[in-house]
Amino acid sequence: MSKLIRSWVESANSHETPFPLNNLPYGVFSTKDLDARCGVAIGDLILDVSTLEAKGLIKATTFPLCQEARWNSLMEAGSQVWSKFRMRLVELLIEGGETSLSANRHLREQVLIDADKARLHLPLKVAEYTDFYSGKHHATNVGTLLRGPENPLPPNWLHLPIGYNGRSSSVVVSGTDVQRPWGQLKSPEFDTPIFTPSRRFDIELEMGAIVGTASSGPITVAEADDNIFGYVLLNDWSARDIQAWEYHPLGPFQAKATATSISPWIVTKAALEPFRTSTPEREKDLLPHLVEPKPLLYNVALEVELKPEGSVATTLSATNMDQLYFSSAQQLAHHTTSGCPMSVGDLLGTGTISGPTKNERGSLLELSWGGKEPIDLGNGISRTFVEDGDTLTLRGNALGEGYRIGFGDCAGKVVAAASDPYKRKS
Amino acid sequence: MSKLIRSWVESANSHETPFPLNNLPYGVFSTKDLDARCGVAIGDLILDVSTLEAKGLIKATTFPLCQEARWNSLMEAGSQVWSKFRMRLVELLIEGGETSLSANRHLREQVLIDADKARLHLPLKVAEYTDFYSGKHHATNVGTLLRGPENPLPPNWLHLPIGYNGRSSSVVVSGTDVQRPWGQLKSPEFDTPIFTPSRRFDIELEMGAIVGTASSGPITVAEADDNIFGYVLLNDWSARDIQAWEYHPLGPFQAKATATSISPWIVTKAALEPFRTSTPEREKDLLPHLVEPKPLLYNVALEVELKPEGSVATTLSATNMDQLYFSSAQQLAHHTTSGCPMSVGDLLGTGTISGPTKNERGSLLELSWGGKEPIDLGNGISRTFVEDGDTLTLRGNALGEGYRIGFGDCAGKVVAAASDPYKRKS
Repeated sequence: MSKLIRSWVESANSHETPFPLNNLPYGVFSTKDLDARCGVAIGDLILDVSTLEAKGLIKATTFPLCQEARWNSLMEAGSQVWSKFRMRLVELLIEGGETSLSANRHLREQVLIDADKARLHLPLKVAEYTDFYSGKHHATNVGTLLRGPENPLPPNWLHLPIGYNGRSSSVVVSGTDVQRPWGQLKSPEFDTPIFTPSRRFDIELEMGAIVGTASSGPITVAEADDNIFGYVLLNDWSARDIQAWEYHPLGPFQAKATATSISPWIVTKAALEPFRTSTPEREKDLLPHLVEPKPLLYNVALEVELKPEGSVATTLSATNMDQLYFSSAQQLAHHTTSGCPMSVGDLLGTGTISGPTKNERGSLLELSWGGKEPIDLGNGISRTFVEDGDTLTLRGNALGEGYRIGFGDCAGKVVAAASDPYKRKS
Repeated sequence: MSKLIRSWVESANSHETPFPLNNLPYGVFSTKDLDARCGVAIGDLILDVSTLEAKGLIKATTFPLCQEARWNSLMEAGSQVWSKFRMRLVELLIEGGETSLSANRHLREQVLIDADKARLHLPLKVAEYTDFYSGKHHATNVGTLLRGPENPLPPNWLHLPIGYNGRSSSVVVSGTDVQRPWGQLKSPEFDTPIFTPSRRFDIELEMGAIVGTASSGPITVAEADDNIFGYVLLNDWSARDIQAWEYHPLGPFQAKATATSISPWIVTKAALEPFRTSTPEREKDLLPHLVEPKPLLYNVALEVELKPEGSVATTLSATNMDQLYFSSAQQLAHHTTSGCPMSVGDLLGTGTISGPTKNERGSLLELSWGGKEPIDLGNGISRTFVEDGDTLTLRGNALGEGYRIGFGDCAGKVVAAASDPYKRKS
C-alpha cells in the first residue's frame, strides 16, 4: 500500500477525499461560465486542464490533447504520453513542487473550480461498448435462478470471459435520469406477448475498462493490460422481463439498450497500480493465450445504495472488484482473438460483480432472488426491482494507507415510463 | 415497374449496367491521382461529386456535404436534402437536361472517372452495427440443424425481429481480404476447449439498411422507414465452430467479429422505390407497434457465388430479399422500443436470407446441411465450409423494365489463418 502524496491543494490531503493527488482522475465539466471541457479532480476542486494547456502550462505533445470536451485525444496519444501528462499534473499540484500554478493566485482562481459549481459530462466519446459476464457468483446465482442449482454455469464459463456487444449510444454519465423502458415481453398470464413498461427493471454493479490504444489483430493479455487507459464504475440497467423473452438465441438486445450509466471520472491505471491483485484461483486451466502474466485485477471496494423518492438511502450490497473471475485485460485479449479491431474509447463492462454472500450481490435480481424475496429497506418500504423515483448509486473506493481512490458516484434516478412511447417529445 | 431514365452518359443506358440514371448510388473512391472522395456510379463511370460540389455545381445546403471521404454528412442533413441532392444529380446527368456538365468537355473529363481505374472504399463511417435474424427459412434451417425439426423457431421468433449488436469496427468494404480467424472452440474429440483456426468458416447472405436520421426514443415503423437512407449488400462472415461454443447464454461474439463485408455502393431508398413489396403474410398477429403501414420490403434478386483459387466461379444460391419475414423498417422500429438512441450511420443487417428450396439457401451451413452434405462445384471440387483462397461474392439486382438497379459486387477472399496469431504484424 502506498501512502498519500500531499498536495498544496489542502482538501486533497484529507483521508476522506476520493480525489487525493494519488488519484488525478479525468472528467469533463462545465459551469455557468465555462463550456464543457477537460478537468482533473483534486480534493474539492476541479483543475481546468483545457485552459492550462491553452496557456502552455501542460505540453506533453506538440499537438493539443485537451481542447475537446472528451479525453479521447490523450488516449490516442499513447501510453508514454499518458505517463508524461500525469507527471506534469503531479509537478503542478504536489506540495513543494513547481510553482507556476501554486504561486500564481490569479491563475489558481481561474483554473481551480469548486466541484460544487460544476456539472459533469460523459468523460469520453465511447466508441463501442461490450459487456462481459465474468462475476462468478453473479453467473452462478443467475444460472441457478434460470436453470436450477445443478450446473448453474454454462459449460464455456470457466474457459473464456463470455461477453456480448452492447450499444455505445446508450451510455450516459452519472446523474442522467433513466426512463423506465417499454418493451415486448411474455407474461405468464397471457398466451401471446404484450408491449408494456418493464416490470422487472434492474441494475448491475460493474466496473468498466476503457481501451486507450487501438489494436487490429489478436493481442496478448499483457498487451491488453497495456492498452487499457483506465476504469470507471458502470451500471448496466437491465429489463429482466424484456430480456427473458428476447434473448433466445442471440442474447440480450433491447433489455440492455435503455441506458448504461458510468461514473464521471476515469481513474487511470497509474492511480490503481498499488491496488493490483490476482484473479481467484482457476478451477479449470485456461488456454495459454488467456493466462494472466501478473496480477491484473484491482482491490476496489464497491457498494450499491438505493434511495426511494423522499426517503432515506439504504446500502443494498457491498462487494469488491477482486471477486471477478476474469480481469478486464483477459476480457480485452479474448475480444481480439478473432481479429476484431479494437478502437480508442471502447468501453468494456466487467459483468455484474457479486460476492459469495447475500449482502454482496450486485443486482436486485439476485438480492430479491428473482423477485421472490423482497428486500426490506426499513420505514415500511421494500423492493424486488427498481421502482419509479428510486435513485440507485454505485460507489467504488480503493483504500490506501491514509488515503483513498474514488470514482465519484455513479448514480441514476429512474423516472416513470412514457404514457405513450410513440408520442413525440416536442 | 418504372422504366429506364436515359442519361447522356451512354453506358448508363445499357440494359446490363447496374448503374443507370435510375440508380445513382453513393460510394467513396480513389484513383492513383485522386484521394478518396465521394462518388456516384453512372454506367461505367464514377462522378466525382466532391469536386463538383467544390466547384459550386451541387448546392443542396449552405454547408458542404461531400468534402469528406464518407457520406455521413449528406445523411445527417436530413431526408429533404437527400431528395434535393438526388434531384440535382438527375438534372446534371439526364439526357436533354441542364448542360453545365454535359456541354463542358473539360469538366466532364475532370469529374467523370473510369470505374475501372478507381479503387472503392467504405462508403460511410459505420456508427454501430446490429445484425438481425429475420430470414424465416434460414432460422428454420438453423433451428432444425441445432434443435431438430420439432419447433425449429424460438417462441419469440414470429413476434419480434430477433437481433444482436455486432462490431462496427469489423465492417469492411467489398474487395477486402478476410483472414480466417483463430478462436476458442470445443471439438467433440476433446474434453476441453482448444484454440485453433476456425474449421467451419461461413458466409451469410444479407442486405444492410443504413440509418440516415438519428432518433432518441421509440419510433414507429413508418418513421423508421423514413429514417433509412439506403441499402447495401452485406456478408456477415461467421465462424460456426467458435459460435457454437461461445454463444450460450449471451449470443454470438467473436464468431462474428472478424469481418462483415458490405457492397461499395449505397443504393438509396429513392432508387429502390419502384421495387417495394410486402413482407410475407403473418403467421401470428404482430403487436401494433410492429405492423407494417405499407409495403416496406423490396424485390431484390440475390445470389452467392463461390470461386476457388485458380478455378471457375459457381453460383451456390439464388434468392430474393422478399423472403424476409421482417423488413428493415420493422427491425429499426423494434431497435428503438427500449429508448435505444439510434445514430446517423448505424448499419442494420437483415439476417441471412434463404428461400424455401435448397438452392436458395444463404449460408454454407444450410447448403451443406451442417457440413454433412458437401456441395459439388464440379471439376472434382466440393465444399462444406469456406476454404482458404475461396472468393465469395454476393450480388443483388432489382429488375425494372429494361433496366436494373445493382449494388456492385460484395466480394471477399478468405486467406489462411496466421501461423501464430500473436506474432506482431511488423
